[in-house]
Amino acid sequence: MNAAPSSALRIGVAGLGRAFSLMLPTFLGDARVQLVAACDTRETARAQFARDFDAPAYDSFDALVADSQVEVIYIASPHQFHAEHTRLAAAHGKHVLVEKPMALSLEACDTMIDACRRAQVHLLVGHCHSFDTPYLVCRELIRGGRLGTVRMIQAMNYTDYLLRPRRPEELMTSEGGGAVFSQAAHQVDIVRMLAGSRATRLRAAVGHWDPARPTEGAYSALVWFENGAYASLSYNGYGHFDSDEWTDWTGEMGHAKDPASYGAARRKLDTVASPQAEAELKANGTYGGPAYVPPKPPGAHDARPWHQHFGPIIVSCDQGDLRPMPNGIQVYGHHAKEWMPLPQPAVPRAEVIDELVAAVRDGVAPLHDGLWAKATLEICIAMLQSDHQGEDVTLMHQGD
Amino acid sequence: MNAAPSSALRIGVAGLGRAFSLMLPTFLGDARVQLVAACDTRETARAQFARDFDAPAYDSFDALVADSQVEVIYIASPHQFHAEHTRLAAAHGKHVLVEKPMALSLEACDTMIDACRRAQVHLLVGHCHSFDTPYLVCRELIRGGRLGTVRMIQAMNYTDYLLRPRRPEELMTSEGGGAVFSQAAHQVDIVRMLAGSRATRLRAAVGHWDPARPTEGAYSALVWFENGAYASLSYNGYGHFDSDEWTDWTGEMGHAKDPASYGAARRKLDTVASPQAEAELKANGTYGGPAYVPPKPPGAHDARPWHQHFGPIIVSCDQGDLRPMPNGIQVYGHHAKEWMPLPQPAVPRAEVIDELVAAVRDGVAPLHDGLWAKATLEICIAMLQSDHQGEDVTLMHQGD
Ligand SMILES: NC(=O)c1ccc[n+]([C@@H]2O[C@H](COP(=O)([O-])OP(=O)(O)OC[C@H]3O[C@@H](n4cnc5c(N)ncnc54)[C@H](O)[C@@H]3O)[C@@H](O)[C@H]2O)c1
Ligand SMILES: NC(=O)c1ccc[n+]([C@@H]2O[C@H](COP(=O)([O-])OP(=O)(O)OC[C@H]3O[C@@H](n4cnc5c(N)ncnc54)[C@H](O)[C@@H]3O)[C@@H](O)[C@H]2O)c1
Repeated sequence: MNAAPSSALRIGVAGLGRAFSLMLPTFLGDARVQLVAACDTRETARAQFARDFDAPAYDSFDALVADSQVEVIYIASPHQFHAEHTRLAAAHGKHVLVEKPMALSLEACDTMIDACRRAQVHLLVGHCHSFDTPYLVCRELIRGGRLGTVRMIQAMNYTDYLLRPRRPEELMTSEGGGAVFSQAAHQVDIVRMLAGSRATRLRAAVGHWDPARPTEGAYSALVWFENGAYASLSYNGYGHFDSDEWTDWTGEMGHAKDPASYGAARRKLDTVASPQAEAELKANGTYGGPAYVPPKPPGAHDARPWHQHFGPIIVSCDQGDLRPMPNGIQVYGHHAKEWMPLPQPAVPRAEVIDELVAAVRDGVAPLHDGLWAKATLEICIAMLQSDHQGEDVTLMHQGD
Repeated sequence: MNAAPSSALRIGVAGLGRAFSLMLPTFLGDARVQLVAACDTRETARAQFARDFDAPAYDSFDALVADSQVEVIYIASPHQFHAEHTRLAAAHGKHVLVEKPMALSLEACDTMIDACRRAQVHLLVGHCHSFDTPYLVCRELIRGGRLGTVRMIQAMNYTDYLLRPRRPEELMTSEGGGAVFSQAAHQVDIVRMLAGSRATRLRAAVGHWDPARPTEGAYSALVWFENGAYASLSYNGYGHFDSDEWTDWTGEMGHAKDPASYGAARRKLDTVASPQAEAELKANGTYGGPAYVPPKPPGAHDARPWHQHFGPIIVSCDQGDLRPMPNGIQVYGHHAKEWMPLPQPAVPRAEVIDELVAAVRDGVAPLHDGLWAKATLEICIAMLQSDHQGEDVTLMHQGD
């Protein structure tokens, strides 16, 4: 596992949980990066990391940032640690790749941005599904001008998000729990990128309908952009209709999905008796846990997923509509439909590494930087605010 | 054609255009009604009606309302005549079935409602897609309580509406043209029916992006209901992505749709050189016109469409989601999906006749009465207003 070239970016991981396990195939498959250290509060995760990577696994973030081998810290700890972990990483001269959502308040984002600026380290926020190639290709098509002005975007996602096993704070909005902080972060990011213009205002309705899981499981929002475009976003994580049906039954992670697995998340959740038991169920299935399933070795037949995605999206422009799919882009022109196939990705989420390496090695300003992600967070927070106040929220932090 | 039983409702038709041609299979197939007279300003349409039905076809509405044979007038004239034709029909003691949208202003709706009340005649508004059996069955399922409280409705429709040949006023919003008056009338009606509660407020964005067809071709809206539910509605009639893909390629009228016909409406429209030529193209393809194709005789193999529909709709309730489809209802429960097949309809749009006959013959108050349709019109007008003013519109005429 240490066959990485000496130029490989040396990454230290903070938080070896679910987010890490989703990034692991990328770290393993992409020779441009190498995992050189980690930290976690779970002993079993540290033990597995030390075994898998023959590298130090610390029990505190302080120890990780002090490791001189580490160039970049991938912060995959729970939301509430993102700001403080970023500040510390920057103070130690480490570049930062921090998971979405960037933080829980705009003030925290500012602190993170300032800390990284002062330390002259790069700050990237991801993985986020706006890194997925089909959306990036759509963005390029739109910027190429062939489709004319963007007018309307429709983004939907119906999942079982709220039924997956969670830590207690993931079910408390005040702690950053719920679909608005965790899921809108993806959808809003994609929509902003495709609109190609600053969002100016928003109106939203949010839903928290399950008293046993008393955080947002759903929302619908309208977002207006400076260029005149508007977007309609809808999300429902209550585990009934599954919108992956409209992406050819390809799941969020790009794998073929078996429609017969309907209800699986709820059946699993029905077995847990307490919040503690639920948090354990989550930890057990993640890196270092007894039920953890390691990623298939790169190249294994069913290890080759298609591109990841975040639900059906239709972008309507003057000259046609775009529909990003996991394996290509459907372009609906004035007179003909055109299918633009995409090559199957060799490594999932390699787009995150593309942007990270370009920033750290070549000084290319990343798209998914702190200001970008702060603007997305502003929209997520505005969703809660608009629902609460019953009116539009004017957006003030959409760049510059 | 005059083999109808003597108890059949005797209908006089005002306006033998496209709406009439879409209702014709119903009138021909349903023995509970009989066409006994008509009026139109087009001579060719009158000639065909006289030939087809061996019944008088007048050149003025005044003559039609004076015909003592007529019990009910089906008002399928252009929007701008609905109010005056209804008033006159009521004054002559005729029941009224008036096409959607009911009228172009709430004041006109009041006049129509008052006129019919005073004359003690029934006023029904339709056909509207909220008559379609899959939606009516969903409404009953919801009212049955098995699915719990309605929380969120997602309604979408991507069509080629704006590219179909039009009369000039159909492209002028001030005359009732555009997708908000003509298409939202369907979508809002369906959503209101499924929400099962009064709408309280609305926020919307509308799109008019083609300078050659300078009326609304698209909109997105959020609507809130008294019971706490909210709905997200989106419509795009610019003829690119076709959402019938998400109803198994069954078109609005219930027929199988050939995806290879992509772009047909635009190709046809490209051949017209002037607004006059376009209006002629529309008239030529409708009843009495040289390119008119009569409906297949009832019973012919491909004359048996499935139920009509108005785009993909997902209704999310506490205990599950409902997805009305042209041939059944997909019920997404907590633990299993259940497919509720619907019988294939013998006569399209027979639901309109059900409600009309029940009202006129048995005195059963119709769902789609004047107050109901006025509430839908209020929402359509509020869409334009919300977009214009950039804020929520409070709804004031949603029943009673
Ligand atoms: N991009 C994606 O697809 C994706 C997917 C899941 C989660 N996430 C994000 O990743 C973050 C973590 O979520 P998760 O689902 O992986 O949670 P998780 O509970 O599965 O993992 C968090 C890990 O961090 C460890 N941890 C807790 N406190 C720590 C600390 N102070 N220092 C170091 N490690 C600590 C936990 O022991 C655990 O192993 C969240 O911000 C979430 O939004 C992103
Ligand atoms: N429910 C549906 O599916 C549906 C479909 C299409 C139209 N419509 C509604 O039907 C109405 C008519 O639209 P259309 O598309 O059929 O238009 P159209 O132009 O095809 O038909 C209108 C007909 O009315 C005739 N006419 C015009 N002025 C008249 C008058 N003063 N008196 C009598 N007849 C007159 C015209 O010659 C024409 O034959 C509109 O309100 C529209 O919203 C409903």
